[in-house]
Amino acid sequence: MSLDALNAALAEIPLAQAMGLHAIQAGAAMALAAPLAPNTNHKGTAFGGSLHSAAILAGWAWLWGYLRQNGLQAQVVIQKAQAEFTAPVAGDFTAFCDGAAPEDLEHLMRMLTRKGRGRLALACRVESGNQVCMKFVGEYVVLMGAAV
Amino acid sequence: MSLDALNAALAEIPLAQAMGLHAIQAGAAMALAAPLAPNTNHKGTAFGGSLHSAAILAGWAWLWGYLRQNGLQAQVVIQKAQAEFTAPVAGDFTAFCDGAAPEDLEHLMRMLTRKGRGRLALACRVESGNQVCMKFVGEYVVLMGAAV
Repeated sequence: MSLDALNAALAEIPLAQAMGLHAIQAGAAMALAAPLAPNTNHKGTAFGGSLHSAAILAGWAWLWGYLRQNGLQAQVVIQKAQAEFTAPVAGDFTAFCDGAAPEDLEHLMRMLTRKGRGRLALACRVESGNQVCMKFVGEYVVLMGAAV
Repeated sequence: MSLDALNAALAEIPLAQAMGLHAIQAGAAMALAAPLAPNTNHKGTAFGGSLHSAAILAGWAWLWGYLRQNGLQAQVVIQKAQAEFTAPVAGDFTAFCDGAAPEDLEHLMRMLTRKGRGRLALACRVESGNQVCMKFVGEYVVLMGAAV
């Protein structure tokens, strides 16, 4: 998936726009960057909800791109999320998703073929100044035959 | 804590403003409401990051208010979060926090007195149209002697 296609998708999410979130890398390694200024809390560091939103979207974008690359039009929905905020964020930040293990992806594709529905856990992280500031695991549900 | 004081605190968080998030109930039961329009995803339902941000802030606001009521000026930071998205949100939504058990609050206050630092888990939920759409547990760290 191209950066342009991904940024066009992000443009349809008003909160992503309010955050200034934009894709800087797409494909096998997904990276969504945001400036600090629109994402501060009352202490001037990054608001946890902004970091979490960036991570949700990094995982979603990775999976959406993977499905498109495999010729599938499917709906991707976040179902569960676990996050650990490991360091305060005092600057611009980037959410990364490195994707899933091949066996997990094979399992997902089998479930989609058999049942039209599957599930995938994706680990994401948020970094600022080369430091990991949030660790995130999102569990996404994929529904075939639904609007993208 | 008054609604005005809480809304003044939310006004210092740009993303909360972009969400249209505002307190409709403060004190022992905390409720933060938001309209759907600025919080949609590309499918027109509520973006998971918006729901999560509202829940983080409902718990944070509850704990901040509790500490202020007890005469404490302390910093409240989200450290861990678990969320389950149980239903799509097709309308305006409200994040609730009902607070913590008395024994957990007593433990927190003892830790703050002894160590100047404590921890509290708070359950929050997001409802839309009287349906629970997200369940959330946030683990917050409280630091005495730090800027609020």
